[in-house]
Parts: sequence; structure tokens; C-alpha cells
Amino acid sequence: MTHAAIDVLGIGNAIVDIIARAEDDFLIRHGMAKGSMALIDEARATAIYDAMGPAVEVSGGSAANTIVGVASFGGRAAFVGKVKDDSLGRAFSHDIRAVGVAFATPPAFEGPSTARCYIVVTPDGERTMNTYLGAAQDLHPADIDPGQIEAAAIIYLEGYLWDPKNAKEAFLKAARIAHAKNRIVALTLSDAFCVDRYRAEFLGLIRDRTVDVVFANEHELRALYQTADFDTAVAQLRADATLAVVTRSEKGCVVVTRTGTEVVPAAAVERVVDATGAGDLFAAGFLVGLSRGREHARCGRLGALAAAEVIQHLGARPEASLHALAQENGLLG
Amino acid sequence: MTHAAIDVLGIGNAIVDIIARAEDDFLIRHGMAKGSMALIDEARATAIYDAMGPAVEVSGGSAANTIVGVASFGGRAAFVGKVKDDSLGRAFSHDIRAVGVAFATPPAFEGPSTARCYIVVTPDGERTMNTYLGAAQDLHPADIDPGQIEAAAIIYLEGYLWDPKNAKEAFLKAARIAHAKNRIVALTLSDAFCVDRYRAEFLGLIRDRTVDVVFANEHELRALYQTADFDTAVAQLRADATLAVVTRSEKGCVVVTRTGTEVVPAAAVERVVDATGAGDLFAAGFLVGLSRGREHARCGRLGALAAAEVIQHLGARPEASLHALAQENGLLG
Repeated sequence: MTHAAIDVLGIGNAIVDIIARAEDDFLIRHGMAKGSMALIDEARATAIYDAMGPAVEVSGGSAANTIVGVASFGGRAAFVGKVKDDSLGRAFSHDIRAVGVAFATPPAFEGPSTARCYIVVTPDGERTMNTYLGAAQDLHPADIDPGQIEAAAIIYLEGYLWDPKNAKEAFLKAARIAHAKNRIVALTLSDAFCVDRYRAEFLGLIRDRTVDVVFANEHELRALYQTADFDTAVAQLRADATLAVVTRSEKGCVVVTRTGTEVVPAAAVERVVDATGAGDLFAAGFLVGLSRGREHARCGRLGALAAAEVIQHLGARPEASLHALAQENGLLG
Repeated sequence: MTHAAIDVLGIGNAIVDIIARAEDDFLIRHGMAKGSMALIDEARATAIYDAMGPAVEVSGGSAANTIVGVASFGGRAAFVGKVKDDSLGRAFSHDIRAVGVAFATPPAFEGPSTARCYIVVTPDGERTMNTYLGAAQDLHPADIDPGQIEAAAIIYLEGYLWDPKNAKEAFLKAARIAHAKNRIVALTLSDAFCVDRYRAEFLGLIRDRTVDVVFANEHELRALYQTADFDTAVAQLRADATLAVVTRSEKGCVVVTRTGTEVVPAAAVERVVDATGAGDLFAAGFLVGLSRGREHARCGRLGALAAAEVIQHLGARPEASLHALAQENGLLG
């Protein structure tokens, strides 16, 4: 494996989040499944926005959030994703570059507008997401620069990329290039409904070693193996994956390898303000540890630290320096 | 005075805030006067945005923030201001209507884009603002609907309206209509540099009774009377204004009338996260009290409560229900 100029490169849907608070009955009235991500068309986007309270706009996107987290830890980070050249697209590009992430995917100059995720945050801090994919639909294999992929120690892909029509081809192209250079390929399963949509394909990716590291929360894991029993699902995951990390909110995470499982506790949280980005930032911390060759327990603690930071404020991007936080907690030198 | 269907109607620049954190040396490097508002052109807006860290977009505008505060207290509120029919303009319109404010000013369909304020928040919580006025330049007297002005018990105007070229004519038209119906006209001096630009005109408005109630912070008051001595400035204000309220951050406010001055303490604040909107929300609470005929000390406490809420989070719009907060604190029935 040659020297890597980039620690982690993420490929994902480039999305701006539009976040508003609401009571639980808002979800019921609008037929939303709490805690999940639903794909919506432009008409539903308009209807939801009209019904939502005052909102805050902030850059999001699952893998993009993770990559911003990597940069906040001091890692060298790059992102590939498609925006339109409109005001939301320019805000997304500004925000990700402003934290030092290399982001060079050319924007679309025509077609649908930049992707938006309408996020409803309920009083318990849980987030329910409604995504209009817009320009993110137009991520193509041509947007994958082989030289940049080869330069990354780890490439990180979101399962949500199975939704836009050509993005999975971009995903597979990137994975092939990475493996030809003995790089690590990581995948997050993204969402339980997403797993329901693409179960066979995701299992195929894991079993045929297209991905080396799998991130999932317990709902996604249960959806993957269609079982209500956590231990049964973990046993199947152990048989299928080389390395997997299953997050369980306040119960911490379970690192799953061929040789066994290891539980890593969650970090202390005073109050969950907005759960958006918890999984994304967990992955950021874990990948930073992995890129530095730390043992899995340390990787898990870095993930837990980043997740705890992001759920204590609105929005899915860290507000504090994760590098400084990790140093204060003795997790990074 | 006939029955008023609206408690407070605000007229101001319709602005979307773009907020980022930065260290103090950012202000020095970019020649910004801490705590102030500077008017910028589009080229400077681009340069500042390029230099800024990742940002959050949230609706703002001084009088607009006040009016949203009035609505949050349960008051009947209306706003007049000019956006363009672009994505920021639609976000502004959505956010203000979503809290129940009547906002019917037609947007501009051509010309410059919706106004933006680039706000830099330093670690002490102080905010430094850079405003690109854009479409807000196009507020005209024709945007003032006489019937709506007549329906409002109080009209509230921001001093910043002296910056766009035709807005002060709109302001004066609204004040004339309001006074013809014996309504109350209130003015905030907005910013010390704004006072420097329009001192003679602001003094004229106060002395000729175009405005009945004046809001100022101590910097603006000192700028108005060009004195470093607070007591000297207050004495002059007493001679000029019927009713004025001078805010002094953690020292609370001073209510100034012909008969004397009254100090009202500030509300307790754990930590100042972002001072943006403190003055705007103070005015909201005070005006709500005034519209319900409360004594001045009670009005001041309502203002202090709203200001304390807004400075403990990012952005200039309340996140909690001010009505509920006021009830908990025994200030509203």
C-alpha cells in the first residue's frame, strides 16, 4: 500500500438540511415514520415545507457530515457529491470547503435544484427526515477521479447512494479503484428503510468483499437480516463481514470481527437536542482512529465522542473542534 | 382610538442571516468593528463569505426579529419588508409566516437578490454584522397599505430603514397614517454607526414627535448626543422624548420618561452563545407589554426575558415559546 495523501474520502448525496422543531403529532398528521428517512418528490417537499415551522438551513448529507467530522478531527478529508450551481449548492460547497475538505465535484448547471432534506426534530431530540434528491440524482461514474480515489487510505460510501439512479455505478467504480490499490472501503447502511429497498445488494457487497468495513445501527442491522433478535443478527454479521460496527445510541457500540465482539460505551450526554448526524459523526471518529491504526476500542471511543458532540446542538455538523475534544479526552495525541 | 386588530406592525429590512463563528483576529484581518453593523456591496459580501467558516442560514432582520418575538409572546403581529422571489426570499417569507405573522409585502421579481447579513460570532458571544441590502433597497411607500397601518395599535420602525433609498419615505408615510388614527409609533436607533449617519434626522423625528417611543442601547444613545457620559445623554433624552428605553446589556435597561428614570434589571443568563437579536427581542417584550397597557417596569421585564432567551442560542429568533416563558415567570396572564 503506497502512501495516502488523503485519510478518508467520502462519496454521498450532497444535501442541505432544512431543520424545524415540531410536536410528535406533526409526524402523525403528515404520515412520517419517526426516526427514518423518506424520499420525497418536489410536490411533497413543497407541502411539507409549507406545513413546517420556522426553519434553519445548514449543510448536511450523511457521508458529507462524516467527512466534515474527519476534517474536524484534523484528518485529511475529501468529498465527492453533486450539487447544482444554485444558492443552496453554493452554500453546501462553501461550508464543506470552509473546514478544509477537498471538494471538487463539478456542480450541475441545469436540471433539478440542489438536494434538500426537510428534518423535523421532535421534543425528544429524534429527527425524522424527508429527502428531495434533486441534483444529487446526477452523480455519475465520470465524477469519480481515479487519481483522487487512489490517494485515499479509506473510502467511505453511504447506502443512500443506491437511491439516485447512477450513483451506485460511481460507488462501485470507486470501490474497484480503491481495492486495486489495497485501500479500505467502508459502507454505512444509512437507514432501515434503505436496507429494505436494497437488502440483497447490500448483503452482496458485504459477502463479496466489495466493502471491508460496515457501519450500521441496530435497526439497520435487524432490517439487513430480517430478525428482531439483536444477537442473531450480530452472529450473521460476524459470518459475513470482516469488520463491522453496530451503534446502539446510549448503549454505545459493538465492534464485530471474525474473532469476536467488543462493546464500547457511549460518551456522556447532558441533553439530546437534535439526533441528526449521530451515526454520521460516529463513523467520522471511528474512521479517524482506523486511519491512524488505533485499536478498535479506541476507534469506537472516538466515534462516541463525536456523536455526543453533534447531538447536543441543532444540525449534523460539529460546532466544536473534535481534535481538541479528542485531545482533552486523551484519545488523540 | 378605534379597536386595533394588530398589536404590533413592524417595518424593516427583510434579511436572511448567514452566521459563522470566528476568533477575534478574523475581525481585525477583515477590518470589522466588533459589535457593529456595516453596509457592504456584493463584491465585499463574496469576499467575506469566502473567508468565513461553515455557516448556518436563518431568517433575521432587526424589526422582523422583533415582530417574530411579538408573535411568540402570543401577540397579533404583522411585518412589512421587501425580499426578492428567490430561495432566500422564500425562506424568509416561510419562516415569518410560520409563526403566525401577517406578511403580505409583494416580493421583487427582478433586481438584486434578497438581503443577506453575514454575521461573525466571536467566542465572547458578541456578533459583528455585514449587511448586503439587495432587494431590501426596493421598499417603497407603495408597499405601505394604509388600512393595515390603521389596524395596528403600535407600529415599530427600525433606524436601519434610513439606509435603503426609498424606505424612509415608506417609514414617514406609515408614521403619518398611524398618528392620524392616534396609534403609537416606535423607533429603534438600530446601531451607533447608523446614528452617526443619520443623527440630525433621528433627533428631528424624536423632537417633532414623529416617534412616540424610542429604543436605543447605550452606545446608540451616546452616539445620538455625541457624549461619552451616560447620565448627560439620558438627561438630554428626557428633554427630547416622551418615552424611551435604553438597554445596557447585563445592567438591564433604563426607562426614561418626562417624570424620571426607572432601572429594570436584566434576566439571568447562563452563557451568552450569540448576542444577535438581543435588542430586537428586548423591544418585542417591551412592546407586547405596552400593547397590553402594562406599567413600564413590567414591559422592561418582558423585554429582558425575551433578550435572555435569544442570546443563549445561535440566531436572532426565539426557539422557545416566549408566551410560555412569560407565564412561567409570572409576567403574563
